[in-house]
Amino acid sequence: MKIAILGTGAGARQHATRLSTLGHEVIVGTRVPEATLARTEPDMMGTEPFAAYLSTRPGLALTTFAEAAEAGEMVINGIDGANAVTALSALPASALAGKTLIDYSVPYVYQQPGDAEHPWPTPWGEMPRLDPVDTDSLAERIQRALPSTNVVKTFVTQEQETVVNPSEFADGDHTMFLAGDHDDAKSAARRLLNAYGWNDLVDLGPLAAARALEMYAHFHTAVGLALGGRFGVKIVRGGSLR
Amino acid sequence: MKIAILGTGAGARQHATRLSTLGHEVIVGTRVPEATLARTEPDMMGTEPFAAYLSTRPGLALTTFAEAAEAGEMVINGIDGANAVTALSALPASALAGKTLIDYSVPYVYQQPGDAEHPWPTPWGEMPRLDPVDTDSLAERIQRALPSTNVVKTFVTQEQETVVNPSEFADGDHTMFLAGDHDDAKSAARRLLNAYGWNDLVDLGPLAAARALEMYAHFHTAVGLALGGRFGVKIVRGGSLR
Repeated sequence: MKIAILGTGAGARQHATRLSTLGHEVIVGTRVPEATLARTEPDMMGTEPFAAYLSTRPGLALTTFAEAAEAGEMVINGIDGANAVTALSALPASALAGKTLIDYSVPYVYQQPGDAEHPWPTPWGEMPRLDPVDTDSLAERIQRALPSTNVVKTFVTQEQETVVNPSEFADGDHTMFLAGDHDDAKSAARRLLNAYGWNDLVDLGPLAAARALEMYAHFHTAVGLALGGRFGVKIVRGGSLR
Repeated sequence: MKIAILGTGAGARQHATRLSTLGHEVIVGTRVPEATLARTEPDMMGTEPFAAYLSTRPGLALTTFAEAAEAGEMVINGIDGANAVTALSALPASALAGKTLIDYSVPYVYQQPGDAEHPWPTPWGEMPRLDPVDTDSLAERIQRALPSTNVVKTFVTQEQETVVNPSEFADGDHTMFLAGDHDDAKSAARRLLNAYGWNDLVDLGPLAAARALEMYAHFHTAVGLALGGRFGVKIVRGGSLR
Protein backbone atom coordinates (compact mmCIF):
# COMPACT_ATOMS: atom_id res chain seq x y z
CA MET A 1 0.00 0.00 0.00
CA LYS A 2 1.10 3.59 -0.59
CA ILE A 3 1.26 5.24 2.82
CA ALA A 4 2.00 8.92 3.34
CA ILE A 5 3.62 10.07 6.54
CA LEU A 6 3.31 13.77 7.26
CA GLY A 7 6.20 14.93 9.41
CA THR A 8 9.89 14.14 9.64
CA GLY A 9 10.44 13.88 13.39
CA ALA A 10 11.68 10.85 15.27
CA GLY A 11 8.17 9.38 15.57
CA ALA A 12 7.41 9.82 11.89
CA ARG A 13 10.70 8.11 11.03
CA GLN A 14 9.80 5.11 13.18
CA HIS A 15 6.69 4.61 11.06
CA ALA A 16 8.53 5.27 7.79
CA THR A 17 11.23 2.72 8.55
CA ARG A 18 8.85 0.07 9.83
CA LEU A 19 6.30 0.46 7.04
CA SER A 20 9.08 0.18 4.45
CA THR A 21 10.26 -3.00 6.12
CA LEU A 22 6.70 -4.33 5.94
CA GLY A 23 6.75 -3.79 2.17
CA HIS A 24 4.73 -0.60 1.89
CA GLU A 25 5.61 2.28 -0.39
CA VAL A 26 6.26 5.16 1.98
CA ILE A 27 6.10 8.83 0.99
CA VAL A 28 7.22 11.27 3.66
CA GLY A 29 5.81 14.78 3.56
CA THR A 30 7.31 17.94 5.03
CA ARG A 31 6.51 21.62 4.80
CA VAL A 32 9.51 22.57 2.64
CA PRO A 33 11.55 19.55 1.54
CA GLU A 34 14.57 21.67 0.60
CA ALA A 35 14.66 23.18 4.08
CA THR A 36 14.28 19.79 5.74
CA LEU A 37 17.11 18.35 3.65
CA ALA A 38 19.33 21.37 4.22
CA ARG A 39 19.52 20.84 7.96
CA THR A 40 22.84 19.43 9.09
CA GLU A 41 22.48 19.56 12.88
CA PRO A 42 20.40 17.34 15.18
CA ASP A 43 17.06 18.92 16.17
CA MET A 44 16.14 20.05 19.69
CA MET A 45 15.23 16.45 20.55
CA GLY A 46 18.68 15.24 19.46
CA THR A 47 17.30 13.55 16.35
CA GLU A 48 19.79 13.28 13.48
CA PRO A 49 19.21 15.47 10.40
CA PHE A 50 16.60 14.00 8.08
CA ALA A 51 19.02 13.93 5.17
CA ALA A 52 21.29 11.59 7.12
CA TYR A 53 18.33 9.37 7.96
CA LEU A 54 17.16 9.35 4.35
CA SER A 55 20.60 8.60 2.94
CA THR A 56 20.57 5.09 4.41
CA ARG A 57 16.99 4.34 3.29
CA PRO A 58 16.88 4.50 -0.49
CA GLY A 59 13.30 3.25 -0.64
CA LEU A 60 11.92 6.36 1.03
CA ALA A 61 10.85 9.52 -0.74
CA LEU A 62 10.59 13.02 0.71
CA THR A 63 8.24 15.57 -0.79
CA THR A 64 5.75 18.23 0.27
CA PHE A 65 2.83 17.59 2.62
CA ALA A 66 0.46 18.03 -0.32
CA GLU A 67 2.24 15.67 -2.70
CA ALA A 68 2.75 13.04 -0.03
CA ALA A 69 -0.90 13.14 1.03
CA GLU A 70 -2.02 13.08 -2.58
CA ALA A 71 0.09 9.98 -3.25
CA GLY A 72 -0.91 8.10 -0.12
CA GLU A 73 -3.81 5.68 -0.02
CA MET A 74 -3.60 6.07 3.74
CA VAL A 75 -2.08 9.01 5.61
CA ILE A 76 -0.39 9.14 9.00
CA ASN A 77 -0.28 12.53 10.71
CA GLY A 78 3.00 13.11 12.50
CA ILE A 79 2.84 16.91 12.37
CA ASP A 80 3.29 18.41 15.82
CA GLY A 81 0.08 19.16 17.66
CA ALA A 82 0.45 22.92 17.66
CA ASN A 83 0.61 23.06 13.85
CA ALA A 84 -1.40 20.05 12.71
CA VAL A 85 -4.79 21.66 12.05
CA THR A 86 -3.28 24.60 10.17
CA ALA A 87 -0.98 22.44 8.07
CA LEU A 88 -3.63 19.85 7.23
CA SER A 89 -6.24 22.50 6.44
CA ALA A 90 -3.87 24.09 3.93
CA LEU A 91 -3.72 20.93 1.80
CA PRO A 92 -5.77 20.68 -1.41
CA ALA A 93 -9.11 19.05 -0.61
CA SER A 94 -8.38 16.18 -3.00
CA ALA A 95 -5.24 15.19 -1.10
CA LEU A 96 -7.10 13.79 1.90
CA ALA A 97 -10.75 13.40 0.85
CA GLY A 98 -12.11 9.92 1.39
CA LYS A 99 -8.89 8.67 2.98
CA THR A 100 -8.04 7.26 6.36
CA LEU A 101 -5.94 9.72 8.36
CA ILE A 102 -4.28 8.21 11.39
CA ASP A 103 -3.49 10.92 13.92
CA TYR A 104 -1.11 10.42 16.80
CA SER A 105 -0.27 14.03 17.60
CA VAL A 106 -0.56 15.45 21.10
CA PRO A 107 -1.74 19.06 21.38
CA TYR A 108 1.14 20.21 23.56
CA VAL A 109 1.62 23.90 24.12
CA TYR A 110 5.31 24.47 24.61
CA GLN A 111 5.72 27.29 27.06
CA GLN A 112 8.88 29.22 27.43
CA PRO A 113 10.87 28.83 30.64
CA GLY A 114 9.77 31.61 32.96
CA ASP A 115 6.13 31.61 31.87
CA ALA A 116 4.61 32.43 35.24
CA GLU A 117 1.12 31.23 34.45
CA HIS A 118 2.23 27.83 33.18
CA PRO A 119 5.60 26.96 34.68
CA TRP A 120 7.83 24.91 32.46
CA PRO A 121 9.09 22.38 33.22
CA THR A 122 6.31 21.24 35.52
CA PRO A 123 7.24 19.66 38.83
CA TRP A 124 7.12 16.14 37.45
CA GLY A 125 9.11 16.76 34.31
CA GLU A 126 9.24 18.79 31.17
CA MET A 127 5.53 18.51 30.56
CA PRO A 128 3.81 21.17 28.47
CA ARG A 129 0.11 21.79 28.93
CA LEU A 130 -2.52 20.62 26.46
CA ASP A 131 -4.78 22.70 24.22
CA PRO A 132 -7.45 21.56 23.58
CA VAL A 133 -8.09 19.46 26.66
CA ASP A 134 -10.98 17.75 28.44
CA THR A 135 -13.98 18.98 26.41
CA ASP A 136 -12.39 18.78 22.95
CA SER A 137 -9.42 17.09 21.32
CA LEU A 138 -6.96 17.76 18.55
CA ALA A 139 -8.28 14.73 16.67
CA GLU A 140 -11.80 16.17 16.71
CA ARG A 141 -10.47 19.52 15.53
CA ILE A 142 -8.73 17.80 12.63
CA GLN A 143 -11.91 15.87 11.81
CA ARG A 144 -13.97 19.07 11.84
CA ALA A 145 -11.39 20.77 9.59
CA LEU A 146 -11.42 17.80 7.18
CA PRO A 147 -15.02 16.55 7.09
CA SER A 148 -14.38 14.34 4.03
CA THR A 149 -11.47 12.55 5.71
CA ASN A 150 -11.82 9.61 8.07
CA VAL A 151 -9.77 10.41 11.15
CA VAL A 152 -8.62 7.68 13.53
CA LYS A 153 -6.79 8.49 16.75
CA THR A 154 -4.35 5.82 17.79
CA PHE A 155 -0.62 5.25 18.58
CA VAL A 156 -0.82 8.17 21.03
CA THR A 157 -0.40 6.23 24.27
CA GLN A 158 3.11 5.06 23.41
CA GLU A 159 6.39 6.31 22.09
CA GLN A 160 6.27 5.64 18.36
CA GLU A 161 9.31 3.37 18.73
CA THR A 162 7.11 1.07 20.80
CA VAL A 163 4.09 1.57 18.56
CA VAL A 164 5.91 0.11 15.57
CA ASN A 165 7.56 -2.64 17.64
CA PRO A 166 5.26 -3.66 20.50
CA SER A 167 7.04 -6.98 20.92
CA GLU A 168 9.95 -5.28 22.68
CA PHE A 169 7.81 -5.50 25.85
CA ALA A 170 6.31 -8.69 27.27
CA ASP A 171 6.28 -10.44 23.87
CA GLY A 172 3.97 -7.67 22.67
CA ASP A 173 1.26 -8.65 25.14
CA HIS A 174 0.15 -5.15 25.99
CA THR A 175 -2.65 -2.93 24.77
CA MET A 176 -3.16 -0.29 22.10
CA PHE A 177 -6.26 1.90 21.79
CA LEU A 178 -8.06 3.56 18.93
CA ALA A 179 -11.02 5.88 18.43
CA GLY A 180 -12.83 7.28 15.43
CA ASP A 181 -16.19 7.89 13.84
CA HIS A 182 -15.58 5.80 10.70
CA ASP A 183 -15.58 2.02 11.00
CA ASP A 184 -13.78 1.37 7.71
CA ALA A 185 -10.98 3.69 8.75
CA LYS A 186 -10.72 2.00 12.12
CA SER A 187 -10.54 -1.37 10.38
CA ALA A 188 -7.68 -0.06 8.25
CA ALA A 189 -5.92 1.21 11.36
CA ARG A 190 -6.42 -2.16 13.05
CA ARG A 191 -4.80 -3.95 10.10
CA LEU A 192 -1.82 -1.62 10.33
CA LEU A 193 -1.56 -2.16 14.08
CA ASN A 194 -1.78 -5.92 13.61
CA ALA A 195 1.04 -5.71 11.05
CA TYR A 196 3.15 -3.81 13.57
CA GLY A 197 2.58 -6.66 15.99
CA TRP A 198 -0.33 -5.47 18.14
CA ASN A 199 -2.76 -8.21 19.11
CA ASP A 200 -4.60 -6.55 21.96
CA LEU A 201 -6.56 -3.59 20.59
CA VAL A 202 -9.30 -1.75 22.46
CA ASP A 203 -11.65 0.32 20.32
CA LEU A 204 -12.80 3.20 22.51
CA GLY A 205 -15.60 4.10 20.11
CA PRO A 206 -16.24 7.55 18.65
CA LEU A 207 -13.52 10.09 17.99
CA ALA A 208 -14.56 12.04 21.10
CA ALA A 209 -12.67 9.35 23.03
CA ALA A 210 -9.52 10.90 21.57
CA ARG A 211 -9.89 13.34 24.48
CA ALA A 212 -9.11 10.46 26.80
CA LEU A 213 -6.15 9.34 24.68
CA GLU A 214 -4.62 12.80 24.40
CA MET A 215 -5.09 13.49 28.13
CA TYR A 216 -3.36 10.19 28.81
CA ALA A 217 -0.15 11.94 27.72
CA HIS A 218 0.57 13.27 31.20
CA PHE A 219 0.00 9.86 32.75
CA HIS A 220 2.33 8.27 30.22
CA THR A 221 5.01 10.85 30.95
CA ALA A 222 4.63 10.52 34.71
CA VAL A 223 4.93 6.73 34.60
CA GLY A 224 7.89 6.93 32.23
CA LEU A 225 9.70 9.35 34.53
CA ALA A 226 8.91 7.17 37.55
CA LEU A 227 10.20 4.00 35.91
CA GLY A 228 13.12 5.69 34.20
CA GLY A 229 12.40 4.15 30.85
CA ARG A 230 9.87 2.83 28.45
CA PHE A 231 6.96 0.55 29.27
CA GLY A 232 3.73 -0.90 27.99
CA VAL A 233 0.21 -0.81 29.40
CA LYS A 234 -1.84 -3.99 29.52
CA ILE A 235 -5.58 -3.89 30.12
CA VAL A 236 -6.39 -6.77 32.44
CA ARG A 237 -9.94 -7.98 31.95
CA GLY A 238 -11.83 -9.04 35.03
CA GLY A 239 -14.04 -12.03 35.55
CA SER A 240 -16.95 -9.76 36.29
CA LEU A 241 -17.03 -8.32 32.80
CA ARG A 242 -20.37 -8.71 31.13
CA MET B 1 -5.31 1.82 63.37
CA LYS B 2 -8.09 4.41 63.63
CA ILE B 3 -8.94 5.43 60.10
CA ALA B 4 -11.42 8.16 59.23
CA ILE B 5 -13.30 8.04 55.96
CA LEU B 6 -14.89 11.30 54.89
CA GLY B 7 -17.88 10.65 52.69
CA THR B 8 -20.67 8.10 52.63
CA GLY B 9 -20.92 7.23 48.93
CA ALA B 10 -20.40 3.83 47.38
CA GLY B 11 -16.63 4.30 47.14
CA ALA B 12 -16.30 5.40 50.76
CA ARG B 13 -18.31 2.38 51.85
CA GLN B 14 -15.96 0.04 50.01
CA HIS B 15 -13.08 1.38 52.09
CA ALA B 16 -15.10 1.33 55.31
CA THR B 17 -16.12 -2.29 54.86
CA ARG B 18 -12.70 -3.49 53.79
CA LEU B 19 -10.78 -1.62 56.48
CA SER B 20 -13.11 -3.01 59.14
CA THR B 21 -12.49 -6.50 57.80
CA LEU B 22 -8.76 -5.83 58.02
CA GLY B 23 -9.18 -5.03 61.72
CA HIS B 24 -9.03 -1.25 61.67
CA GLU B 25 -11.31 1.00 63.67
CA VAL B 26 -13.25 2.94 61.05
CA ILE B 27 -14.99 6.25 61.66
CA VAL B 28 -17.10 7.52 58.79
CA GLY B 29 -17.67 11.26 58.53
CA THR B 30 -20.50 13.07 56.79
CA ARG B 31 -21.67 16.68 56.67
CA VAL B 32 -24.79 16.18 58.79
CA PRO B 33 -25.08 12.66 60.24
CA GLU B 34 -28.77 13.05 61.01
CA ALA B 35 -29.51 13.98 57.40
CA THR B 36 -27.42 11.10 56.07
CA LEU B 37 -29.21 8.64 58.35
CA ALA B 38 -32.65 10.07 57.55
CA ARG B 39 -32.42 9.16 53.86
CA THR B 40 -34.54 6.17 52.96
CA GLU B 41 -34.20 6.11 49.16
CA PRO B 42 -31.21 5.02 47.04
CA ASP B 43 -29.10 7.95 45.83
CA MET B 44 -28.77 9.05 42.18
CA MET B 45 -26.16 6.33 41.65
CA GLY B 46 -28.55 3.67 42.95
CA THR B 47 -26.61 3.21 46.17
CA GLU B 48 -28.69 2.00 49.12
CA PRO B 49 -29.39 4.46 51.96
CA PHE B 50 -26.45 4.74 54.35
CA ALA B 51 -28.59 3.73 57.31
CA ALA B 52 -29.32 0.40 55.63
CA TYR B 53 -25.62 -0.09 54.95
CA LEU B 54 -24.70 0.82 58.53
CA SER B 55 -27.35 -1.42 60.08
CA THR B 56 -25.52 -4.55 58.96
CA ARG B 57 -22.09 -3.30 60.07
CA PRO B 58 -22.19 -2.74 63.81
CA GLY B 59 -18.46 -2.02 63.99
CA LEU B 60 -18.78 1.20 62.01
CA ALA B 61 -19.50 4.62 63.44
CA LEU B 62 -20.98 7.62 61.64
CA THR B 63 -20.27 11.13 62.82
CA THR B 64 -19.43 14.58 61.46
CA PHE B 65 -16.52 15.26 59.13
CA ALA B 66 -14.79 17.13 61.96
CA GLU B 67 -15.21 14.43 64.59
CA ALA B 68 -14.25 11.66 62.20
CA ALA B 69 -11.11 13.48 61.05
CA GLU B 70 -10.22 14.33 64.64
CA ALA B 71 -10.50 10.67 65.64
CA GLY B 72 -8.60 9.25 62.67
CA GLU B 73 -4.88 8.63 62.75
CA MET B 74 -5.14 8.50 58.97
CA VAL B 75 -7.88 10.10 56.87
CA ILE B 76 -9.31 9.03 53.51
CA ASN B 77 -11.06 11.71 51.50
CA GLY B 78 -14.12 10.39 49.73
CA ILE B 79 -15.91 13.75 49.50
CA ASP B 80 -16.96 14.48 45.93
CA GLY B 81 -14.52 16.55 43.96
CA ALA B 82 -16.73 19.62 43.60
CA ASN B 83 -17.04 20.01 47.38
CA ALA B 84 -13.82 18.55 48.75
CA VAL B 85 -11.72 21.70 49.17
CA THR B 86 -14.56 23.65 50.81
CA ALA B 87 -15.52 20.84 53.16
CA LEU B 88 -11.95 20.04 54.17
CA SER B 89 -11.05 23.71 54.65
CA ALA B 90 -13.98 24.09 57.05
CA LEU B 91 -12.58 21.53 59.48
CA PRO B 92 -10.79 22.64 62.65
CA ALA B 93 -7.04 22.86 61.94
CA SER B 94 -6.31 20.25 64.60
CA ALA B 95 -8.46 17.62 62.87
CA LEU B 96 -6.06 17.07 59.97
CA ALA B 97 -2.75 18.67 60.98
CA GLY B 98 0.21 16.32 60.74
CA LYS B 99 -1.91 13.48 59.36
CA THR B 100 -1.82 11.52 56.15
CA LEU B 101 -4.82 12.38 53.98
CA ILE B 102 -5.40 9.97 51.13
CA ASP B 103 -7.38 11.65 48.38
CA TYR B 104 -9.10 9.74 45.62
CA SER B 105 -11.64 12.33 44.50
CA VAL B 106 -11.99 13.36 40.88
CA PRO B 107 -12.80 17.03 40.23
CA TYR B 108 -15.80 16.36 38.02
CA VAL B 109 -18.08 19.22 37.11
CA TYR B 110 -21.53 17.80 36.65
CA GLN B 111 -23.23 19.77 33.92
CA GLN B 112 -26.93 19.76 33.44
CA PRO B 113 -28.32 18.06 30.35
CA GLY B 114 -28.71 20.73 27.69
CA ASP B 115 -25.62 22.69 28.69
CA ALA B 116 -24.66 23.84 25.20
CA GLU B 117 -21.04 24.63 25.98
CA HIS B 118 -20.30 21.30 27.61
CA PRO B 119 -22.73 18.68 26.31
CA TRP B 120 -23.70 16.03 28.80
CA PRO B 121 -23.49 13.17 28.39
CA THR B 122 -20.43 13.38 26.17
CA PRO B 123 -20.36 11.20 23.09
CA TRP B 124 -18.52 8.39 24.84
CA GLY B 125 -20.64 8.28 27.96
CA GLU B 126 -21.87 10.31 30.86
CA MET B 127 -18.54 12.00 31.39
CA PRO B 128 -18.47 15.35 33.12
CA ARG B 129 -15.58 17.70 32.50
CA LEU B 130 -12.78 18.27 35.00
CA ASP B 131 -11.94 21.42 36.97
CA PRO B 132 -9.07 21.84 37.66
CA VAL B 133 -7.38 20.07 34.78
CA ASP B 134 -3.97 19.91 33.09
CA THR B 135 -2.07 22.66 34.91
CA ASP B 136 -3.42 22.01 38.41
CA SER B 137 -5.17 19.23 40.28
CA LEU B 138 -7.71 18.83 43.04
CA ALA B 139 -5.10 17.07 45.17
CA GLU B 140 -2.78 20.07 44.91
CA ARG B 141 -5.66 22.40 45.80
CA ILE B 142 -6.36 20.31 48.88
CA GLN B 143 -2.68 20.35 49.81
CA ARG B 144 -2.52 24.13 49.42
CA ALA B 145 -5.65 24.50 51.56
CA LEU B 146 -4.20 22.19 54.23
CA PRO B 147 -0.48 22.95 54.36
CA SER B 148 0.01 21.03 57.64
CA THR B 149 -1.55 17.86 56.22
CA ASN B 150 0.29 15.28 54.14
CA VAL B 151 -1.78 14.64 51.04
CA VAL B 152 -1.33 11.50 48.95
CA LYS B 153 -3.24 10.97 45.72
CA THR B 154 -3.96 7.34 45.01
CA PHE B 155 -6.87 4.90 44.37
CA VAL B 156 -8.11 7.26 41.64
CA THR B 157 -7.39 5.07 38.60
CA GLN B 158 -9.86 2.38 39.67
CA GLU B 159 -13.36 1.94 40.94
CA GLN B 160 -13.03 1.77 44.72
CA GLU B 161 -14.49 -1.73 44.64
CA THR B 162 -11.38 -2.81 42.74
CA VAL B 163 -9.08 -0.63 44.86
CA VAL B 164 -10.01 -2.51 48.01
CA ASN B 165 -9.98 -5.90 46.25
CA PRO B 166 -7.41 -5.90 43.45
CA SER B 167 -7.25 -9.68 43.40
CA GLU B 168 -10.56 -9.87 41.56
CA PHE B 169 -8.52 -9.30 38.37
CA ALA B 170 -5.58 -11.42 37.24
CA ASP B 171 -4.75 -12.54 40.78
CA GLY B 172 -4.20 -8.91 41.65
CA ASP B 173 -1.29 -8.59 39.23
CA HIS B 174 -2.07 -5.11 38.02
CA THR B 175 -0.82 -1.69 38.95
CA MET B 176 -1.78 1.09 41.34
CA PHE B 177 -0.23 4.56 41.35
CA LEU B 178 0.42 7.17 44.00
CA ALA B 179 1.78 10.69 44.19
CA GLY B 180 2.56 13.08 47.00
CA ASP B 181 5.10 15.46 48.45
CA HIS B 182 5.54 13.66 51.79
CA ASP B 183 7.47 10.40 51.85
CA ASP B 184 6.14 9.25 55.24
CA ALA B 185 2.58 9.72 54.04
CA LYS B 186 3.30 7.81 50.85
CA SER B 187 4.79 4.99 52.92
CA ALA B 188 1.60 4.88 54.98
CA ALA B 189 -0.47 4.79 51.79
CA ARG B 190 1.71 1.99 50.43
CA ARG B 191 1.13 -0.09 53.58
CA LEU B 192 -2.60 0.39 53.21
CA LEU B 193 -2.46 -0.57 49.52
CA ASN B 194 -0.39 -3.64 50.35
CA ALA B 195 -2.99 -4.64 52.94
CA TYR B 196 -5.71 -4.30 50.31
CA GLY B 197 -3.71 -6.69 48.15
CA TRP B 198 -1.74 -4.42 45.83
CA ASN B 199 1.76 -5.63 45.09
CA ASP B 200 2.60 -3.53 42.04
CA LEU B 201 2.76 0.11 43.08
CA VAL B 202 4.24 2.90 40.97
CA ASP B 203 5.18 6.07 42.84
CA LEU B 204 4.78 8.90 40.36
CA GLY B 205 6.68 11.31 42.58
CA PRO B 206 5.44 14.73 43.69
CA LEU B 207 1.80 15.61 44.18
CA ALA B 208 1.80 17.51 40.87
CA ALA B 209 1.59 14.07 39.25
CA ALA B 210 -1.96 13.95 40.63
CA ARG B 211 -2.80 15.93 37.50
CA ALA B 212 -1.95 12.85 35.48
CA LEU B 213 -3.99 10.61 37.76
CA GLU B 214 -7.07 12.84 37.75
CA MET B 215 -6.92 13.30 33.96
CA TYR B 216 -6.72 9.53 33.65
CA ALA B 217 -10.40 9.51 34.64
CA HIS B 218 -11.61 9.95 31.07
CA PHE B 219 -9.36 7.17 29.84
CA HIS B 220 -10.63 4.87 32.57
CA THR B 221 -14.23 5.65 31.68
CA ALA B 222 -13.64 5.19 27.96
CA VAL B 223 -11.98 1.81 28.43
CA GLY B 224 -14.69 0.71 30.84
CA LEU B 225 -17.42 1.63 28.39
CA ALA B 226 -15.56 -0.11 25.56
CA LEU B 227 -15.12 -3.32 27.53
CA GLY B 228 -18.54 -3.18 29.13
CA GLY B 229 -17.22 -3.81 32.60
CA ARG B 230 -14.42 -3.43 35.05
CA PHE B 231 -10.75 -3.99 34.37
CA GLY B 232 -7.26 -3.49 35.70
CA VAL B 233 -4.24 -1.76 34.21
CA LYS B 234 -0.86 -3.45 34.35
CA ILE B 235 2.33 -1.55 33.64
CA VAL B 236 4.55 -3.84 31.59
CA ARG B 237 8.20 -3.04 32.09
CA GLY B 238 10.46 -3.27 29.08
CA GLY B 239 13.88 -4.80 28.80
CA SER B 240 15.27 -1.47 27.74
CA LEU B 241 14.51 0.18 31.07
CA ARG B 242 17.53 1.71 32.67
